[in-house]
Amino acid sequence: MTQLRQNLATKEWVIIATERARRPDDFIHSGHGPAHDVPELDAHCPFCPGNEEDELEALRLPETGPWEVRIVRNLYPAVAPEGMLVRDFAGVAREMSGIGYHEILVESRLHNETLALMTPAAVTSVFRALVERGREIAQDRRIEMIVIFKNHGHSAGASLLHPHTQIVALPIVPNDVRVRADEARRYYDQQGQCVFCDVLGHELASQTRIVCETDHFVALVPYAAAGPFNTWIMPRRHTASFFGITEVELEDLGGIVQTMLRKLYEGLYNPDYNFVVRTAPTRDGGVDYLHWYITLVPRLAQAAGFELGSGIFINVTLPEACAEFLRKTGVVDGL
Amino acid sequence: MTQLRQNLATKEWVIIATERARRPDDFIHSGHGPAHDVPELDAHCPFCPGNEEDELEALRLPETGPWEVRIVRNLYPAVAPEGMLVRDFAGVAREMSGIGYHEILVESRLHNETLALMTPAAVTSVFRALVERGREIAQDRRIEMIVIFKNHGHSAGASLLHPHTQIVALPIVPNDVRVRADEARRYYDQQGQCVFCDVLGHELASQTRIVCETDHFVALVPYAAAGPFNTWIMPRRHTASFFGITEVELEDLGGIVQTMLRKLYEGLYNPDYNFVVRTAPTRDGGVDYLHWYITLVPRLAQAAGFELGSGIFINVTLPEACAEFLRKTGVVDGL
Repeated sequence: MTQLRQNLATKEWVIIATERARRPDDFIHSGHGPAHDVPELDAHCPFCPGNEEDELEALRLPETGPWEVRIVRNLYPAVAPEGMLVRDFAGVAREMSGIGYHEILVESRLHNETLALMTPAAVTSVFRALVERGREIAQDRRIEMIVIFKNHGHSAGASLLHPHTQIVALPIVPNDVRVRADEARRYYDQQGQCVFCDVLGHELASQTRIVCETDHFVALVPYAAAGPFNTWIMPRRHTASFFGITEVELEDLGGIVQTMLRKLYEGLYNPDYNFVVRTAPTRDGGVDYLHWYITLVPRLAQAAGFELGSGIFINVTLPEACAEFLRKTGVVDGL
Repeated sequence: MTQLRQNLATKEWVIIATERARRPDDFIHSGHGPAHDVPELDAHCPFCPGNEEDELEALRLPETGPWEVRIVRNLYPAVAPEGMLVRDFAGVAREMSGIGYHEILVESRLHNETLALMTPAAVTSVFRALVERGREIAQDRRIEMIVIFKNHGHSAGASLLHPHTQIVALPIVPNDVRVRADEARRYYDQQGQCVFCDVLGHELASQTRIVCETDHFVALVPYAAAGPFNTWIMPRRHTASFFGITEVELEDLGGIVQTMLRKLYEGLYNPDYNFVVRTAPTRDGGVDYLHWYITLVPRLAQAAGFELGSGIFINVTLPEACAEFLRKTGVVDGL
């Protein structure tokens, strides 16, 4: 018999289909192999050194000398900062102007680099730039939500190979974010505790779904993981907003993100993946009931009509088995 | 500048990215071409005549003589009816047994048939079988939600070519369904009207997004369509549950579904698509604030990190332009 599991924090159900269960080993060759098998420099790549369009630049680190990471405006933005924020609601026609920011963080000078193979310090630089730019954008009072995400590989939605992460700042709180926040607030009202702190406590006590730990972060496969090898990287310290991260946490974060990506890279042969920073809306940075974390989703399953109709995902692997596989995958934790 | 549009019924936002806008014509060759270019019979197909496993059968029409449509149990079910419905909630571990029904409706005896090319009467037979089987399943008091959906083509999640639709009956109301129902109830509480009836009224008055109409149904591209050529097929009569459909509506439904699928088939060269019947939870069939409809989603866009992180979709086409394209695509409405 299959099993339905509910995520304590979001109250969302998933189906763990043990009858068609696949072992984690079945996914070993899901990826595309060595990332470095293409040239370091591509003359046609807009993110490669030499092709910088300076008028698009929003931030570079370091500020002098050759850049290590750059943030540039997206040439085809989903939202843009120029213009007035206008709302126009009339019957079924409810619209707002597409005000916001849509920017790209270029993670490396090298065209064929990938976070999994970078040093922890270089990964920390990526996150430091995201935090710095996010804090700047949040000063714009029109912005209500900053979404940070990465698409790695074609099936994960990446159209350019050069390693990059995206920032989209929106003038609304998306419904999904609001629904999750409402659920977390209900839990807080009833239990007097942040639900994510409780989840972390339960997981650390049981240890069955923990992949690795550092001083400031814990990586785990959630109890109700929606797909194979989905993982959360959670700060131990309660903080609603990613942009409230401290410098010592930032330095630690690069290590655990690199470790987790390296485990996927080696264990699954460089699979396509998305990651998303789940963080509080910009004006809710101090709340007691939200807790930021990174959700990491290798692209190993396909959403189809059932997911569209129900919002429920079918996971063909056991989260505990995925955690064990990732724990054993040969990299030193926190390297 | 791009535009944010909000769906009046669900309050979900989409981004209409007019700056990277593509014309509907750009999608003309998105599909796979003629469906009939494979044999009518495949000896290895479990759904072809001659390969029936009678112990899996749940329903066949007609009951005597050669079947036209059959409903069979899924060999690898996500949920199954045998066993006790057990709930076990302890801290982060919240589980239920996977009780339910997961069945396949085989839409035709022909391996290479497709709804778009069938007669309206044959499409009506498909929906009649779904209604009949759904009403039977709803008698099982453990069932709270029946999800009916179709995956057409590989990128839409179909693993078998033989034309089929799926039924999944669940012992829970999925969160997505609950959130939509709550939103619709709020509208009803405030306006004293079903929001879907209001949407339909607005759309019929403006006519800019209507694709075609029959006596009992209206097909339209929603104002806040999440992707290119997304359409809704809505009954004119307020009914919360698909399973409350009347015989005269059923006879009409086959025609408009076939017309819409034929328009996609001809206009976009047989694209992959999903459809989902959005209907009330089994115990809410009589409520005033929900209204069943079919949502039809050609697979022309890819969800990536942004959609995962925000739940917001970026539509690169104007809904009004998609409606106009579909209106003009050369089939007689209601044929």
